[in-house]
Amino acid sequence: MVKNTYMRWRLPFVCLLWEVAMIILFGVFVRFDPEADAHWKEEQRQKNLTSDIENDFYFRYPSFQDVHVMIFVGFGFLMTFLQRYGFGAVGFNFLLAAFGIQWALLMQGWFHSFENGKILIGVENLINADFCVGSVSIAFGAILGKTSPVQLLILTLFQVTLFAVNEYILVSLLHVKDAGGSMTIHTFGAYFGLTVTRILYRPNLEQSKDKQGSVYHSDLFAMIGTLYLWMYWPSFNSAVSNHGDAQHRAAINTYCSLASCVLTTVAFSSLLQKKGKLNMVHIQNATLAGGVAVGTSAEMMLTPYGSLIVGFLCGIVSTVGFVYLMPFLESKLRIQDTCGIHNLHAMPGLIGGIVGAVTAATATEEVYGKEGLISAFDFTGDYKDRTPSVQGGFQAAGIFVSLAMALAGGAIVGAILKIPFLGDPADENCFEDDVYWEVPEDEESSLYPMHDPTLKPVTS
Amino acid sequence: MVKNTYMRWRLPFVCLLWEVAMIILFGVFVRFDPEADAHWKEEQRQKNLTSDIENDFYFRYPSFQDVHVMIFVGFGFLMTFLQRYGFGAVGFNFLLAAFGIQWALLMQGWFHSFENGKILIGVENLINADFCVGSVSIAFGAILGKTSPVQLLILTLFQVTLFAVNEYILVSLLHVKDAGGSMTIHTFGAYFGLTVTRILYRPNLEQSKDKQGSVYHSDLFAMIGTLYLWMYWPSFNSAVSNHGDAQHRAAINTYCSLASCVLTTVAFSSLLQKKGKLNMVHIQNATLAGGVAVGTSAEMMLTPYGSLIVGFLCGIVSTVGFVYLMPFLESKLRIQDTCGIHNLHAMPGLIGGIVGAVTAATATEEVYGKEGLISAFDFTGDYKDRTPSVQGGFQAAGIFVSLAMALAGGAIVGAILKIPFLGDPADENCFEDDVYWEVPEDEESSLYPMHDPTLKPVTS
Amino acid sequence: MVKNTYMRWRLPFVCLLWEVAMIILFGVFVRFDPEADAHWKEEQRQKNLTSDIENDFYFRYPSFQDVHVMIFVGFGFLMTFLQRYGFGAVGFNFLLAAFGIQWALLMQGWFHSFENGKILIGVENLINADFCVGSVSIAFGAILGKTSPVQLLILTLFQVTLFAVNEYILVSLLHVKDAGGSMTIHTFGAYFGLTVTRILYRPNLEQSKDKQGSVYHSDLFAMIGTLYLWMYWPSFNSAVSNHGDAQHRAAINTYCSLASCVLTTVAFSSLLQKKGKLNMVHIQNATLAGGVAVGTSAEMMLTPYGSLIVGFLCGIVSTVGFVYLMPFLESKLRIQDTCGIHNLHAMPGLIGGIVGAVTAATATEEVYGKEGLISAFDFTGDYKDRTPSVQGGFQAAGIFVSLAMALAGGAIVGAILKIPFLGDPADENCFEDDVYWEVPEDEESSLYPMHDPTLKPVTS
Repeated sequence: MVKNTYMRWRLPFVCLLWEVAMIILFGVFVRFDPEADAHWKEEQRQKNLTSDIENDFYFRYPSFQDVHVMIFVGFGFLMTFLQRYGFGAVGFNFLLAAFGIQWALLMQGWFHSFENGKILIGVENLINADFCVGSVSIAFGAILGKTSPVQLLILTLFQVTLFAVNEYILVSLLHVKDAGGSMTIHTFGAYFGLTVTRILYRPNLEQSKDKQGSVYHSDLFAMIGTLYLWMYWPSFNSAVSNHGDAQHRAAINTYCSLASCVLTTVAFSSLLQKKGKLNMVHIQNATLAGGVAVGTSAEMMLTPYGSLIVGFLCGIVSTVGFVYLMPFLESKLRIQDTCGIHNLHAMPGLIGGIVGAVTAATATEEVYGKEGLISAFDFTGDYKDRTPSVQGGFQAAGIFVSLAMALAGGAIVGAILKIPFLGDPADENCFEDDVYWEVPEDEESSLYPMHDPTLKPVTS
Repeated sequence: MVKNTYMRWRLPFVCLLWEVAMIILFGVFVRFDPEADAHWKEEQRQKNLTSDIENDFYFRYPSFQDVHVMIFVGFGFLMTFLQRYGFGAVGFNFLLAAFGIQWALLMQGWFHSFENGKILIGVENLINADFCVGSVSIAFGAILGKTSPVQLLILTLFQVTLFAVNEYILVSLLHVKDAGGSMTIHTFGAYFGLTVTRILYRPNLEQSKDKQGSVYHSDLFAMIGTLYLWMYWPSFNSAVSNHGDAQHRAAINTYCSLASCVLTTVAFSSLLQKKGKLNMVHIQNATLAGGVAVGTSAEMMLTPYGSLIVGFLCGIVSTVGFVYLMPFLESKLRIQDTCGIHNLHAMPGLIGGIVGAVTAATATEEVYGKEGLISAFDFTGDYKDRTPSVQGGFQAAGIFVSLAMALAGGAIVGAILKIPFLGDPADENCFEDDVYWEVPEDEESSLYPMHDPTLKPVTS
Repeated sequence: MVKNTYMRWRLPFVCLLWEVAMIILFGVFVRFDPEADAHWKEEQRQKNLTSDIENDFYFRYPSFQDVHVMIFVGFGFLMTFLQRYGFGAVGFNFLLAAFGIQWALLMQGWFHSFENGKILIGVENLINADFCVGSVSIAFGAILGKTSPVQLLILTLFQVTLFAVNEYILVSLLHVKDAGGSMTIHTFGAYFGLTVTRILYRPNLEQSKDKQGSVYHSDLFAMIGTLYLWMYWPSFNSAVSNHGDAQHRAAINTYCSLASCVLTTVAFSSLLQKKGKLNMVHIQNATLAGGVAVGTSAEMMLTPYGSLIVGFLCGIVSTVGFVYLMPFLESKLRIQDTCGIHNLHAMPGLIGGIVGAVTAATATEEVYGKEGLISAFDFTGDYKDRTPSVQGGFQAAGIFVSLAMALAGGAIVGAILKIPFLGDPADENCFEDDVYWEVPEDEESSLYPMHDPTLKPVTS
């Protein structure tokens, strides 16, 4: 069956329509946060801040840039492992993220930074917008190679919207702590994406199986993504935590969890393999599960030792998931998960939510100090009487809310993406850049043609 | 015509001569800024700064490192898209930038940091040196693949000198604001490079046309450059702005402009293509135009909404430039612009200068606050009576000065580079690393033979 | 001779055993530093710090992240130059570093951060752990492609231990300054690795010589590593220096030294080559020698001009080392140094130690100021009467101690690695990922067969 994947009118139409909408909405609603506004000097005197260094910019900007790299280079290159889908992986991730952060600034702004009819944005809003888009990049991983850019832009519009609603319910209504997004970003994003790919199930996908593998260099490109995600994850989990000890602690816990995760990933990658050889797919993905799984608890007093345990378990869970669970999901549940986000984000995300709930429930004044406990969980105002154990209950509730939102939302959005004229590729053209990209005729047009039937391997 | 591209004596001679000159000049002139000097503690008490965190290092170092990455990895890898010029792109950019930053520290130092016969350098000088070299990397993009390393070192010497003079005229004499360098870096650098490549026009360049294309993986390497430029541009435009709200604001405006630019680039890349497929050249370059175009105005009260509009327009202008203007420039004006810097830096740079002039001219006390207006445009000392509208006029003048300096300077330097014995490659050897680099005979020496000796180069 | 390189039981066993050990030891010993602990608010009042920005996190975290990138992406990708060992280079470096940082937190903690039976860790500990692992990555460079992951994990265990002991002797007993680790990281790491590779000498290694070269794209991947090391080295040398001017100064000196180093590397790479062409191996490595060689002195008043001289000399020494010394070391001394760490780390490390000793010995109150001199060299407490010249003597002593520790330690560890059942590859399988990794059958399974036209796309 030949499908119409001609993008010439549809893609520009969607891009321009949405960008124009962004401009209008920004014009009506978005202004600078006082710390980014030229009136800051007056502001400063009122808050009597002694120095410009007190501007939130200096507390968060370095972490913001690390997060920014994770979203665009980290997720983008992690998905370049496919031998002929590198342009789509990096390019479409770039496109959906660039649109998503704008829409996220608005959606999150209406819920969290809305004052006198205006959304006031500062560096923290930029970080949260990147976070929101991170959940879309995660979902993208499940449908990688099987959708058109138009479908991705529609997906982004809806997922960002639902993300903001879910985040509002958790953070504002349930007063849940989730600075690194185990629930709001990973659990939500992954189950959302898995539901979408389930709805878009392709029974004859084996027609493009030959393109689902990697080649030597594409695996190295993917390692660029992996390493940047791994290295900057401490910034990810600490970026929006409270100033001072909370940010400091979140970075340390994440650093520990990730380190531990690498060793169990390597161990099980070799162990579950008859030949005992390491599998790049595991190294590229499961090593990151430790960062996902401390997303909620990193800013709490999880302790370095607790972090090592979490990382230890997640490296195992994630690797086992790739070996045993993924084939099962595809054959039995008809969930075709291109990048294995179920192993990297879904399961570790759930674990992260649970670890967070337990860590919160077991918090004590002895460990946090009276003041520390109050500031760590923001037990002030309406919540000044909330106890750690109650907080733990609400944290647990947050997991289920995120799951429900993801499944329901994913089902609806998946159905929307089935609308015929959105230009998705035929089964035999999946995982192939040629469909939407001008691909250089590689070595054909080069001085170094790449194959020679006659030539034997030469050893110098 | 066979040319003498033998570098053995010429290249070492130039490198050593110039490095020795740097050492002598640094010995005579360069010392540490008080904030980097061991006497800092005393200094601190005099300025009665309460804490070490007040050291400018902590305000600017993270942005400096981002800028540093943009110059060396960003520009370096962006130019690796050519199938057989990756070593030259990354390697020569590395060489000219490493020399350029030293010479820039001196040139800019004499104009801006000269006290009692010494140039006092701190982190801000390092950022400005990187900025200066950025304009050389931009010019390099126009002549990429067509010059020898000796020519590039000579080009750098002269361009850095002219950059510093131009910057001095704008910033010190005209009192123009240009923190992100729309005029001083992009407009100047691009038109300088375009003039040079015009002078070095090669009528028979089609002899190496087959090497001017990309291959699949070279396009992915180029995307590394693109993404780092795109992600860190907010740091670029805010790096040398005033402490506090100005840096904060500049980052936000740039973030918005860049996001918007991606969508219009994708829209027009598809729209201007019969097959409606996306063109990697556009994605790699036009998506960055939004950062160039807010280089002057980002630190002003451009507003997020204004930034989106600028990015929106520049994505279109830049992509249209690649499709229609570039062939015209080559065929009619004999400007052979390898990387299309006219589309990424020249036009958006001009737009950036104009947007800056307008934004300055329309600044009001209502929007900036009395204090804010004064500090934003530094209306103090000799300039305390300057009004926004007058400032706008001077900003506009800055555009023309930069243009004039670029065209005149480029013509002179281009003529100098025509000196015969500088070792430029023959037309048929352009865009080919073999000329100046020891290139591994790829798979010949490997287990996986890649090429066929009998096959002739195919010209597409 | 066929060797048993089957890792299925051995590798998981070592990984799990050691990670479990880490968890137990962290549980017993590791807690948060007060600045990362929830009690921080109280702490703050006691130290009466006016603001959260005074938390050490904000002084050091951006530098930490840069160092982190150097260890994992910098060293990892620098070693991907081998045509078929990219997985091993990036993957094994990832593995040993992930284990190493945990073990380093403990070892360095017992020596430097041990209070009332607990190791208190903060961001500075994370940086030092990364530093320690850096010396292992350096040693890995000498044996790259010739050892099994099990051997590497054993190597890491012992080298980290010895590193911590050596560091304790230098920093605590001799009161030596070595913020950028010319002695503790580079001299120690390099000579340790060279001794190990000497012990593991393989007389018949030429059997895999054909795999010791690079291919075009593997050289570009390696440049990613080179540039990140080069760009972030100023952060490396300033990361643990005193707050304020010392960090500021260290970054500037390193920036200057590295810039100068690039020009002499290029000059000599061309000069020492009959054809006068540039050699990628030199550009990838010798350009970094300038950073190594100011590792001790960067935070001192070396001056920008002094830094240029150091960089100038090291670019020459390192390049000459690659051309003349390396073949000699292999043929005469039987030292097979895969990455040429002798040229990049060993010699420049020694030079760095000497430069540091001289710079310290020649320090004066006039140059540093009374206060500055005391704080720069920490002439307080037991050391309040130490003079610069005496300090210079101790610095020199530090070089010899590091050398002795490296040679003795390397000999012992090398002997341990000879234990037969550790799974090292046979000579003909060295520098080949196939041994320990599942390697994609490259283009065979792709649409673009590289060396077998008859082969049909294979569906896995």
